[in-house]
Amino acid sequence: MAPSLSALVILFSLFFFLTSTHSAHSHEHPLDPITPSEFFHIQTIISNSYPSSTHNLTFQYVGLEEPNKSTILSWIHCSSSTAKNNPPRKSFIIIRANKETHEIIVDLLQRSIISDKVYTGHGYPPLTSEEQTAANQLVLTYPPFIRSVKKRKLKLSEVVCSSFTVGWFGEEYVKRNIKILCFYLDVNFYVRPIEGVTIVVNLDEMKVTEYTDRIMVPIPKAEGTDYRKSKSKQSKDVMGIHDGRCFDIDGHSVSWANWKFHISFDVRAGLIISLASIYDQEKDKFRHVLYKGFISELFTPYMDPTEEWYYRTIFDAGEFGLGQYASQLEPLKDCPANAVFMDGYYAGQDGNPVEIKNVFCIFEKYAGDIMWRHTETSIPGKVIREVRKEVSLVARMVSTVGNYDYIIDWKFQESGSIKVEVGLTGILGMKATEYTHKGQIKEDIFGTLLSDYTVGVYQDHFVTYYLDLDVDGDNNSFVKSTLKTKRVTETAKTESDAKIKLGADPIELVVVNPNKKTKMGNDVGYRLIPGRQQASSLLSDDDYPQIRAAYTKYHVWVTPYNKSEKWASGLYVDQSRGDDTLAVWSSRNREIQNKDIVLWYTVGFHHVPCQEDFPVMPTLSGGFELRLKEIRSLTT
Amino acid sequence: MAPSLSALVILFSLFFFLTSTHSAHSHEHPLDPITPSEFFHIQTIISNSYPSSTHNLTFQYVGLEEPNKSTILSWIHCSSSTAKNNPPRKSFIIIRANKETHEIIVDLLQRSIISDKVYTGHGYPPLTSEEQTAANQLVLTYPPFIRSVKKRKLKLSEVVCSSFTVGWFGEEYVKRNIKILCFYLDVNFYVRPIEGVTIVVNLDEMKVTEYTDRIMVPIPKAEGTDYRKSKSKQSKDVMGIHDGRCFDIDGHSVSWANWKFHISFDVRAGLIISLASIYDQEKDKFRHVLYKGFISELFTPYMDPTEEWYYRTIFDAGEFGLGQYASQLEPLKDCPANAVFMDGYYAGQDGNPVEIKNVFCIFEKYAGDIMWRHTETSIPGKVIREVRKEVSLVARMVSTVGNYDYIIDWKFQESGSIKVEVGLTGILGMKATEYTHKGQIKEDIFGTLLSDYTVGVYQDHFVTYYLDLDVDGDNNSFVKSTLKTKRVTETAKTESDAKIKLGADPIELVVVNPNKKTKMGNDVGYRLIPGRQQASSLLSDDDYPQIRAAYTKYHVWVTPYNKSEKWASGLYVDQSRGDDTLAVWSSRNREIQNKDIVLWYTVGFHHVPCQEDFPVMPTLSGGFELRLKEIRSLTT
Repeated sequence: MAPSLSALVILFSLFFFLTSTHSAHSHEHPLDPITPSEFFHIQTIISNSYPSSTHNLTFQYVGLEEPNKSTILSWIHCSSSTAKNNPPRKSFIIIRANKETHEIIVDLLQRSIISDKVYTGHGYPPLTSEEQTAANQLVLTYPPFIRSVKKRKLKLSEVVCSSFTVGWFGEEYVKRNIKILCFYLDVNFYVRPIEGVTIVVNLDEMKVTEYTDRIMVPIPKAEGTDYRKSKSKQSKDVMGIHDGRCFDIDGHSVSWANWKFHISFDVRAGLIISLASIYDQEKDKFRHVLYKGFISELFTPYMDPTEEWYYRTIFDAGEFGLGQYASQLEPLKDCPANAVFMDGYYAGQDGNPVEIKNVFCIFEKYAGDIMWRHTETSIPGKVIREVRKEVSLVARMVSTVGNYDYIIDWKFQESGSIKVEVGLTGILGMKATEYTHKGQIKEDIFGTLLSDYTVGVYQDHFVTYYLDLDVDGDNNSFVKSTLKTKRVTETAKTESDAKIKLGADPIELVVVNPNKKTKMGNDVGYRLIPGRQQASSLLSDDDYPQIRAAYTKYHVWVTPYNKSEKWASGLYVDQSRGDDTLAVWSSRNREIQNKDIVLWYTVGFHHVPCQEDFPVMPTLSGGFELRLKEIRSLTT
Repeated sequence: MAPSLSALVILFSLFFFLTSTHSAHSHEHPLDPITPSEFFHIQTIISNSYPSSTHNLTFQYVGLEEPNKSTILSWIHCSSSTAKNNPPRKSFIIIRANKETHEIIVDLLQRSIISDKVYTGHGYPPLTSEEQTAANQLVLTYPPFIRSVKKRKLKLSEVVCSSFTVGWFGEEYVKRNIKILCFYLDVNFYVRPIEGVTIVVNLDEMKVTEYTDRIMVPIPKAEGTDYRKSKSKQSKDVMGIHDGRCFDIDGHSVSWANWKFHISFDVRAGLIISLASIYDQEKDKFRHVLYKGFISELFTPYMDPTEEWYYRTIFDAGEFGLGQYASQLEPLKDCPANAVFMDGYYAGQDGNPVEIKNVFCIFEKYAGDIMWRHTETSIPGKVIREVRKEVSLVARMVSTVGNYDYIIDWKFQESGSIKVEVGLTGILGMKATEYTHKGQIKEDIFGTLLSDYTVGVYQDHFVTYYLDLDVDGDNNSFVKSTLKTKRVTETAKTESDAKIKLGADPIELVVVNPNKKTKMGNDVGYRLIPGRQQASSLLSDDDYPQIRAAYTKYHVWVTPYNKSEKWASGLYVDQSRGDDTLAVWSSRNREIQNKDIVLWYTVGFHHVPCQEDFPVMPTLSGGFELRLKEIRSLTT
């Protein structure tokens, strides 16, 4: 939808440009966009050939006609020489004149048209904002439309219109038409469409050519949809400055903006988030979202079947412990200046406590991102521009299990999202070899030759999250909508319905609480939005490591809550035989509809090492988002 | 891989803990982790039952035994009352004693063991770091290993060992064994494995039980793999502070850290990045990566077939212009405090220049992220901790085409990556309806009831990027590796080989320059890593909007460079008939191997509106990464 634009036409004196303009040679870069003075030249040159008064001239597109690639590359090559010879400066222009589309090339140095072709194929050039504004205004003076407005008991002065392209639906003959849609005024007028009215304007004639008033539908109310800060009362403000510490830590309980949660440390799981709740301004209370979340297992099989490598199929949490191998975080490097650190303790082999200083850091993060924004230029006489910065609270731990460093982040956002990320960095698993060049290699070496005698071995990483979502209470359901031309929505009844391998179908996954409805009748819920890194295991089902990590064949599992089902790979993982895993529990196919359910999500990486991963790997991140779907306007 | 850990055992006085400890009632939160004094209690209680001297006692896991969910929830519920009754505080412990695994629960208030079971199933508990250190040390005194070291002419004092779990490969009887791997010292010792030696240590006996020295392979050199900053000479430093402006803008040319590129503005495409090159320290020159990148089209079909909505299938770039509708960016909100702004100009309908103030912002971004890190604790007597902050340079534009705001970011990173992101925010496309509650709706309304009389209509967004990658010159190839148990690598010969719908197979996509090899013989290249939002079109092939946007059925296309093939939806999009699109050009199936090629990537969103998107939508982002694969150690 493209409303009229209150563009700032430059009112510089033409004289100023024409006199101050220097030769095209002085352009700093041949790819620079067309400058204001060049636009004036182009306008003058073309208007001379197609006087507006007789040709109904409009400029639909004016852009740079780029020099050829070879010209650019040789220009760059010569950039050290002082007498730099700039390539010819040209512009490509599309105009409409006498209802025809022309493609024109202007040489800006010669100040002349060097080519002018009439385009007779299908389709029309981009719309100008001026012609859209004119069409929008035209409708407001069109008597049948004025009658439609009156019939609806609306004030014409409160109607604002906006233009839409008509598309193409197989018609043989078409004209340069647009459709006009009208709305009833409010800051957020998109909420208030005047439905049922179709208006077609011919842009070449600037006339209404079709008009239908098919149905009458109430105009929605706009209350509560004004998105300007000045009109809202926000309970708690977020500073969003880098040195701010706008969060409270009371023991292990953290509160920030509209969130509160508990953070804990475990020698096996590492960082554990519990009891994450979000503040509901309307109800003036916190509402439960996540009862508990942590990394249940991190399975890392190397993909090399040779004698010294085949067994390297490590379960980092269950065999070694993500908490045991947590790194002491370094202020100003692992975490920014505004971070607050927490220490962690676990029992050593002798039972005595071992301290890990700075095992967690918690910080408010603002990185110049935008939580939401809108610029509105369609309301006569105003420009509305509202922007909210995206500030989030990050809880971080780093676990260094041998050569690999895993950066584990939980990010809480004011918008209600929890973004979960894991970054892989550190040092590759390397194998010594006799080779010094790829050309010497005849057999499969199960990796990449990184340096003399050094192979980076293929490996996978499956980071499996335990997510006990309790949205507004613990009886929840898991809903999968497959998007076809029509949506097919299924609520998972038993565990086998919820086992999902991502990638095949476009799906939307939601955990809902069917017992809590919004005022509109929608179930309250949270969406699971998969992020980057959706690998699933390539091992065959009867391969022993795969028997032990059978749950890595699917990205998503849902189980009924069971206190003892906590570790996806089983309680005893070292030399386990796969008889106590998520895949086994789930094979009982228990009921999961409207129950206390746990969602399991695996972030999977296929890591084919490359030379740039050597000697240290740049962080490769993956994750997912738990995104608020329906929470507000609760009935009960 | 889990090396020994130089853990910091706390040397607090036990006396201090026992005296200062207060009753379990005073715990701040029942989910708090086990405290140091609790660890001491647990250790004392269990050691009394299993004296270490006679039982060979080791603590394999000590964690919180959580109260039941209902207890926790009622505890929270009562949190306002002052006399808060904490639930019983318990710990779950796994020990090994006399070669058996025990599961013990200790009541910390009663200070007693309340349950103790021997576990007899498969698998072993997590390894302690102490037993791993002991096993690693043991190997260094094992005569056959000492002989293997001598045979390889290595110094024993420079050997460091590390332990690996053995896994399970179908054996009926197993023992609590681990395998030990040894390396030759260097800061980055993972580069220097002593290959061919397999050592098995039984942890219960703490004895070497198997030893094989199968093959001898040269020890790789570690030169150039020391990752500490103090050992490297970095050409240009990045401040990474929020108020820094560590980049130069000369006209439209930008240079920062190891990158330089050109940024331009076009009324149709909006932001254009050209000539992005990365600095090669070894060769002391800039090397080409991306000749040009921009959004070629942004197709937004609404999915409502009714009379007033069916035609709303908008091509935002080709019909309206992302540049024409670019928003003036607001300092401190749309971009952070350290941003530098640039203005843009386009030709209005009359040909005169129209200025958009602050159309771009450019800023250095540091958000507490980590570019790479490693903590090394396996080298006797040292702890190495190296962390590099992730700082990037962002070039941003926002285009507001009607109700939607698109945040368009190009992010350059020191690691060589270009991350491309598009964020969707603004206001939903809304339809008026007669309904006020979901329960009233019997037919398909093609959207979600958001508020009284208001439906958010389903829509898709396909953001198609034009990416003319010229990695080290313009003759490049496109390589697709399908990861099965073995990798199948194919170089695309013609356009039809390169048409890819993501999701079906695990694949790796790379643009290589087969004419430039690294010293190791690998082709130089860049990887395309798809990010979030991989929707592809749901419309049927013979639907008119789909005929016009046929290219949205695939995420990836590769075409031979052709100056006129720039707009995925054709030069004339308004009412186009799909006869001049990427899908049509590509149907000629031209050769693309070792040619100047252009990669096209579509970020696709299926937007099923939800109540939380109303009245303004929190930003939903998608994108992809161009990640450096092999660039360094060039031969020519």
